[in-house]
Amino acid sequence: MKIINLALFGPGKVGSKLIQQIIAAKDQFLRNSDLEIRIVLIADSSNLITDHLGFDEHWKERFGKEKRSYKFQDILKYLEKNTFTNLISIDTTASDSLPENYIDLIEHGSHIVAANKAANTLSLEFYEQLRTALKQHHKIFQYETNVGAGLPVVETIKSLYESGEQVTRIRGVFSGSLSYIFNTYSRQNVQFSEVLRKAGEFGYTEPDARVDLSGKDVARKLLILARELQLKKELEEVSIQSLLPTSLNGGTSLQHFQKQVSILDDIFQKHKDENKSGEVLRYVGELNVENGSLQTRLISANAATPLGQIDGTDNIFEIYSESYKEFPLVIKGAGAGIDVTARGVFSDILKINKQLN
Amino acid sequence: MKIINLALFGPGKVGSKLIQQIIAAKDQFLRNSDLEIRIVLIADSSNLITDHLGFDEHWKERFGKEKRSYKFQDILKYLEKNTFTNLISIDTTASDSLPENYIDLIEHGSHIVAANKAANTLSLEFYEQLRTALKQHHKIFQYETNVGAGLPVVETIKSLYESGEQVTRIRGVFSGSLSYIFNTYSRQNVQFSEVLRKAGEFGYTEPDARVDLSGKDVARKLLILARELQLKKELEEVSIQSLLPTSLNGGTSLQHFQKQVSILDDIFQKHKDENKSGEVLRYVGELNVENGSLQTRLISANAATPLGQIDGTDNIFEIYSESYKEFPLVIKGAGAGIDVTARGVFSDILKINKQLN
Ligand SMILES: NC(=O)c1ccc[n+]([C@@H]2O[C@H](COP(=O)([O-])OP(=O)(O)OC[C@H]3O[C@@H](n4cnc5c(N)ncnc54)[C@H](OP(=O)(O)O)[C@@H]3O)[C@@H](O)[C@H]2O)c1
Ligand SMILES: NC(=O)c1ccc[n+]([C@@H]2O[C@H](COP(=O)([O-])OP(=O)(O)OC[C@H]3O[C@@H](n4cnc5c(N)ncnc54)[C@H](OP(=O)(O)O)[C@@H]3O)[C@@H](O)[C@H]2O)c1
Repeated sequence: MKIINLALFGPGKVGSKLIQQIIAAKDQFLRNSDLEIRIVLIADSSNLITDHLGFDEHWKERFGKEKRSYKFQDILKYLEKNTFTNLISIDTTASDSLPENYIDLIEHGSHIVAANKAANTLSLEFYEQLRTALKQHHKIFQYETNVGAGLPVVETIKSLYESGEQVTRIRGVFSGSLSYIFNTYSRQNVQFSEVLRKAGEFGYTEPDARVDLSGKDVARKLLILARELQLKKELEEVSIQSLLPTSLNGGTSLQHFQKQVSILDDIFQKHKDENKSGEVLRYVGELNVENGSLQTRLISANAATPLGQIDGTDNIFEIYSESYKEFPLVIKGAGAGIDVTARGVFSDILKINKQLN
Repeated sequence: MKIINLALFGPGKVGSKLIQQIIAAKDQFLRNSDLEIRIVLIADSSNLITDHLGFDEHWKERFGKEKRSYKFQDILKYLEKNTFTNLISIDTTASDSLPENYIDLIEHGSHIVAANKAANTLSLEFYEQLRTALKQHHKIFQYETNVGAGLPVVETIKSLYESGEQVTRIRGVFSGSLSYIFNTYSRQNVQFSEVLRKAGEFGYTEPDARVDLSGKDVARKLLILARELQLKKELEEVSIQSLLPTSLNGGTSLQHFQKQVSILDDIFQKHKDENKSGEVLRYVGELNVENGSLQTRLISANAATPLGQIDGTDNIFEIYSESYKEFPLVIKGAGAGIDVTARGVFSDILKINKQLN
């Protein structure tokens, strides 16, 4: 029997769902694959619980009761003491600082799976340091859900690149929240602020919707894909079209933004009015490999094209290459959502498992 | 430095292209990954050449000169004598009999990559024997190009299934040649036989186009996907709508078919006439997990839907599941072609490589 041990950082929406999916599948893996998956550590930013035999469905009660505050050193000591085989650390936080600990984790024998985009979008220097540490310690880093949630985007682009296929261009809608917003706003006769409010209610946007509207999330995804193609880019090199007027931009409070949000109604009505008949608004990311440009912008797209036709929170990725030249390779589907994202993280864990003998 | 050794069966269109791609990438793998990929054996149905240090770009001349006829036992003996590390056998034939030798190859230490669909579409008994042998000898079998050529279809469905996602339905256009035929026939005002002739000229159809028109190729792909979802199905259980009238069906000669092919013109004109305005013909495969049905049939699809909009030799796969419920996960792109298929086989080799330490 094979055991894999998981250390989970960030039992939030995606993290909790993942724990639930893993525990639900436990018996099946034991029966069909002689594989035991144990979650031996759960930590949020301030609290930690551990069980070297693995948590069961009562983990949440225990997290409430047994939790204790910790320093990251305590975690490393726990890992040293227990020398877990097949250890995988999972980052389902949105923390910019947790990735600083990845290298320590790797040196302590851990593979990494991240839904968190930070490690891949910090400086190129860090990006390369991390890859060097992985190589040196023969450890694996999976992060399929960084782009397109559960869609097989990162893996597909990686496979094309590695097998020598020349990818020339990637274009698409990379944000579930902006997809929902423009799909709805383009089809219905409603104020922009109303659609934005609804998107918030459904949990599609961040609590502070300006994070979505700033375009930075799309820029980060674009950067991740560019780096998969070995383009040595920094986030600052992405040309980002923010959807926020300066008066509503960072610097002001969230409260101020929420009060003034109707300013957006006129702005987007104007964009809508500028559409030709049969056109819809789409916020797209575009990566051009030949000239090395990375751009995010609001465009008017023909409603009858695949880009114009997306629905719900769909993401769409159009990948052009040497062999997919005239007609691209297209991947489309829900680009956000707790279930699909947790499944994607689970798949990443299983991909690492396959490489562990 | 790591060495992987390849035994290639079927240096035809896909096989030759693959050899070319591998040899072109050789230096890059040596430099970037300390990996040497050697092609140590090349065999078609009657001839065999070997070089335990690996062939270079002059393999074709050597295949012409050094080739010798062989029995499969000779191959096994060669493998025994050389005890290659990290051996992968590649099947780019369309042979129904070669898969019978997979288990011998596995017992001789080989992993398997197949573009050939036969191993996955013979009896369920053989399918399971093969899986048992793979498990017992800790060997890997990859066959991404069996469905959708270079598109990441098999892997995506496998990942969804393994991570516990309940796939409920898969529908789409699974044949590059039938895609081209109906895309062209639906848009242009031409006779069906004329489109068929063109598809042959471009090399999209099999030499005997009845193989495509019989629907059997689509049925085989459907069966492969069903089996990925652990549905225990046989090819005979697929309900196939053949596009051939009995008078042109098997039994008659290819010559007879080619002479009488214009019979098809009236038949398809009638189908076209039955379309409502804005509809196009599509030959689709559909797998319904809940009732276990597998079907191929000619349908009228709304031209404004993703299914109606495919172009060229595009395949499209619409995957519905628990989480992709209202809007499916969609994968689309060229579903045939020598370049994309060879790249897909190359990716499969690299996927195995990642699992070999
Ligand atoms: N939801 C989606 O559709 C989706 C799709 C793709 C990717 N993702 C990514 O998945 C990640 C999680 O998303 P979510 O929606 O689950 O967020 P969430 O509900 O806010 O959960 C984040 C969790 O991380 C914890 N956390 C924060 N800083 C931490 C630290 N330094 N160490 C340990 N735990 C820490 C938080 O706990 P405390 O702050 O209370 O300590 C919380 O439990 C994000 O990076 C997101 O971008 C989400
Ligand atoms: N072309 C595509 O777009 C595409 C896409 C996906 C999958 N595929 C699959 O890829 C495979 C190859 O396609 P292709 O277009 O390259 O076909 P091909 O050009 O006809 O090549 C087949 C090769 O296999 C050899 N062969 C036949 N029987 C053999 C045996 N028992 N042992 C060793 N070699 C044998 C043939 O040589 P001799 O007969 O001269 O001995 C020939 O070299 C097929 O299974 C096809 O379905 C093709």
